[in-house]
Amino acid sequence: MARDERSVTPQSEDFAAWYQDVVFRAELVDRGPVRGSMVIRPYGYRIWELLQADLDGRIKATGHQNAYFPLLIPQSYLQREAEHVEGFAPELFTVTHAGGKELEEPLVIRPTSETIIGEMMAKWISSHRDLPLLLNQWANVLRFEMRPRMFLRTSEFLWQEGHTAHATAADATAETMLALGFYQDTAAEIAAMATVPGEKTPSERFAGAERTFTIEGMMRDGRALQAATSHFMGTNFATAFGITYTGENGTAELCHTTSWGMSTRMIGGLVMTHGDDKGLVLPPALAPYQVVIVPIGRGEQFGTTLSAATDLAATLRRAGIRTHVDERPQLSPGFKFNDWEMRGVPIRLELGQRELAAGTALMSRRLSYPQPAAAKVAIPLETATDLLVAELAAVQAMLAQRAADFRDEHTATVDSWPEFAAAVAVGWAVALHCGELACEDEIKAETSATPRCIPLAGEPEQGRCIRCGRASAYGKRMIFARAY
Amino acid sequence: MARDERSVTPQSEDFAAWYQDVVFRAELVDRGPVRGSMVIRPYGYRIWELLQADLDGRIKATGHQNAYFPLLIPQSYLQREAEHVEGFAPELFTVTHAGGKELEEPLVIRPTSETIIGEMMAKWISSHRDLPLLLNQWANVLRFEMRPRMFLRTSEFLWQEGHTAHATAADATAETMLALGFYQDTAAEIAAMATVPGEKTPSERFAGAERTFTIEGMMRDGRALQAATSHFMGTNFATAFGITYTGENGTAELCHTTSWGMSTRMIGGLVMTHGDDKGLVLPPALAPYQVVIVPIGRGEQFGTTLSAATDLAATLRRAGIRTHVDERPQLSPGFKFNDWEMRGVPIRLELGQRELAAGTALMSRRLSYPQPAAAKVAIPLETATDLLVAELAAVQAMLAQRAADFRDEHTATVDSWPEFAAAVAVGWAVALHCGELACEDEIKAETSATPRCIPLAGEPEQGRCIRCGRASAYGKRMIFARAY
Repeated sequence: MARDERSVTPQSEDFAAWYQDVVFRAELVDRGPVRGSMVIRPYGYRIWELLQADLDGRIKATGHQNAYFPLLIPQSYLQREAEHVEGFAPELFTVTHAGGKELEEPLVIRPTSETIIGEMMAKWISSHRDLPLLLNQWANVLRFEMRPRMFLRTSEFLWQEGHTAHATAADATAETMLALGFYQDTAAEIAAMATVPGEKTPSERFAGAERTFTIEGMMRDGRALQAATSHFMGTNFATAFGITYTGENGTAELCHTTSWGMSTRMIGGLVMTHGDDKGLVLPPALAPYQVVIVPIGRGEQFGTTLSAATDLAATLRRAGIRTHVDERPQLSPGFKFNDWEMRGVPIRLELGQRELAAGTALMSRRLSYPQPAAAKVAIPLETATDLLVAELAAVQAMLAQRAADFRDEHTATVDSWPEFAAAVAVGWAVALHCGELACEDEIKAETSATPRCIPLAGEPEQGRCIRCGRASAYGKRMIFARAY
Repeated sequence: MARDERSVTPQSEDFAAWYQDVVFRAELVDRGPVRGSMVIRPYGYRIWELLQADLDGRIKATGHQNAYFPLLIPQSYLQREAEHVEGFAPELFTVTHAGGKELEEPLVIRPTSETIIGEMMAKWISSHRDLPLLLNQWANVLRFEMRPRMFLRTSEFLWQEGHTAHATAADATAETMLALGFYQDTAAEIAAMATVPGEKTPSERFAGAERTFTIEGMMRDGRALQAATSHFMGTNFATAFGITYTGENGTAELCHTTSWGMSTRMIGGLVMTHGDDKGLVLPPALAPYQVVIVPIGRGEQFGTTLSAATDLAATLRRAGIRTHVDERPQLSPGFKFNDWEMRGVPIRLELGQRELAAGTALMSRRLSYPQPAAAKVAIPLETATDLLVAELAAVQAMLAQRAADFRDEHTATVDSWPEFAAAVAVGWAVALHCGELACEDEIKAETSATPRCIPLAGEPEQGRCIRCGRASAYGKRMIFARAY
């Protein structure tokens, strides 16, 4: 492949084109043959596995259990919760035939599983002793998508969906916030993303939820990405599916339910939070390879450095560092350097004759911040393991800091319409709003910005709507931004 | 729940009813709302996760990478390989509508992914340097099923499907056998099943394969269960999807491909290999809880023993033993003992006042072999960890030995038709066969037995067909059995 085929559109020129270039050229993903579908390639899927492992650990540590529910749901189930079916009907894939015959009732492919899990919960829960019921499922879901974007909007995606049932509204609310905490922690600690947790306004709520909470991340074009959501359903689904329990005093009561999900969309968020004009930038915690070693030399020399690289890799792997040796003989070192920069590998080590003789390797970070990238640094092979463990931790912290700084620099608290318009052109606006849908629509029409969330951390504040001047709603400021 | 609701039909009375009773009462599974579907409950799903972790480790350690391909496949793809579509057409679920509109071309839900992965392989492979391409996918697949049996035959199941492409037939054949080895090792080392690896006869081959290999396990009713399969496709799919590479000498060549899979069916095999009239029997390597501690006592006494049980559990967990404390206050010890026996927990510890005072716990194995179950044994709490680690290893080995002995005792090498009929009534017959489909059909009509495999380990042998007396085929004996 020619060098220029591996370069990407600069972010400043066309961020959307940059994103497309990176996800394809870093081999995270490919287009599937059916419109709107995607193939997650091994390099992208490994990132998903690392995300999964972290999140699954948090889910299990808090008493949730994984289970698996059917892909196909009777069409009638969705109709039992009026808002739910209204929200999802336009996105459904419908199965009408099976085994060569037409089905008596069409089946829909799950766009989410509240309905079928609600049906099973109703069967499994009878007494207050059965509560809370804390379930989670890792699965594929399908939502028809006319304008696909890899990871961000595709007709099929992978996710986990937590579904829980509780005796009281207070218990279910606490669960909703607990799950939101999983997401915020995974985003911060593993994905090095600086998300803002908050509540969605009614227009952005999940179809069928009483309250929806979100974590919103800022991408490097200033747009917001909803990275995960957690929903308090009240008794809406319990009513629709008959999820009841007998209380301690013998009376039948409705359960309060929740659901919460994080999906492969997060990989798109990761790309747009950290990437640059050289390609992907991966936080070490999610990097399939944390360190790549490139042996340098021709002919016999290559054999010697390759052998040393292999030994070093074995040492690093024993310390838990995910290490790869690039032993492709037909490619130049320069090509390899570009290739691993495109794939976002946090640390590259070069090993040539001169380094070998000196007992060192040349280390380069994929990205440095706030200072520009340091030149290559010679590190002693003898202490390489400890040094790289520390370096990877430093890179992880550096990326989280860079994301937080970027978010803060591109977030403006505004009190006038011109300030608002200027803020959402490059980032987020924190403003008071009247809470009226018509006013939201006007803002969207003029600036493309939509209400992202009412931040949990916001201070109580009242005043005039940034757009229409009416009395503000929600009791605090909210975030508006253009969004994915 | 009354005690008798938790007992099961004896195996000797009705093995199929016993199986149904066990999978539902041990809460492995439940029926889904759509005919033929199943819900895998947390206790069953945890077994699947433990199986997955083991198999995924073997797959990755040999250079395979996980990826994810779309659920929906254009109907036309299946038609490109004539045998493939003929085999799978009767089992397809068809999506005709999406987003409220009729699709231009119907999509089928994957019954297996050779076609869509073949299409992508053709895109990704160009040079001999791209080979071998070693992919694996963990996914759900759907095959319409009129007569469902939980885990064994359901319209949807979970599995992994490996798909690889190679330069030569020899490389692809070696891969086919490598994968078969994963399955045999996972079955033996983790599931404690004594499977027989062998090759399928043409009538039992995968639709589109040149050669199909299987591991066959013996269930406790003497029937065979195909526990996993591995297929050598030759160039069939490479021809249908244009999977070609440029060789070192510059010529275009067809790849040779393989595929191989193990599914949630394995859980059914596990149940029927080890279970007894008290319920499930789980090998420790796949037991969600390896040790369950039941604290004994009423009122204040229960508080004391519960506290000691919790401490002991923490100690055991630190040593990697999956331990559960049954703290349900409303249930009697007797009920709990039956409950954990039904769920197949390998080791139960009882902790009462008397034991606490003596610094011991009473240990019971779920099952002993070849001697009948020993009475409860008092073990010192101080050395409980080491003792239980050893005990769990002993139980794992004991179950594997029991399965191998059972298989051997119910396998007969036969040279006459009456012997054959007697053998397949209670187990497996190892016999010479002519290899003719019509003769296979006659055997099936009379005895319900079908060709299971030509064991890899069999000695070369020629002679007369057990049924029709014609010259034998395959050069060795094969296994016939009634099968799931």
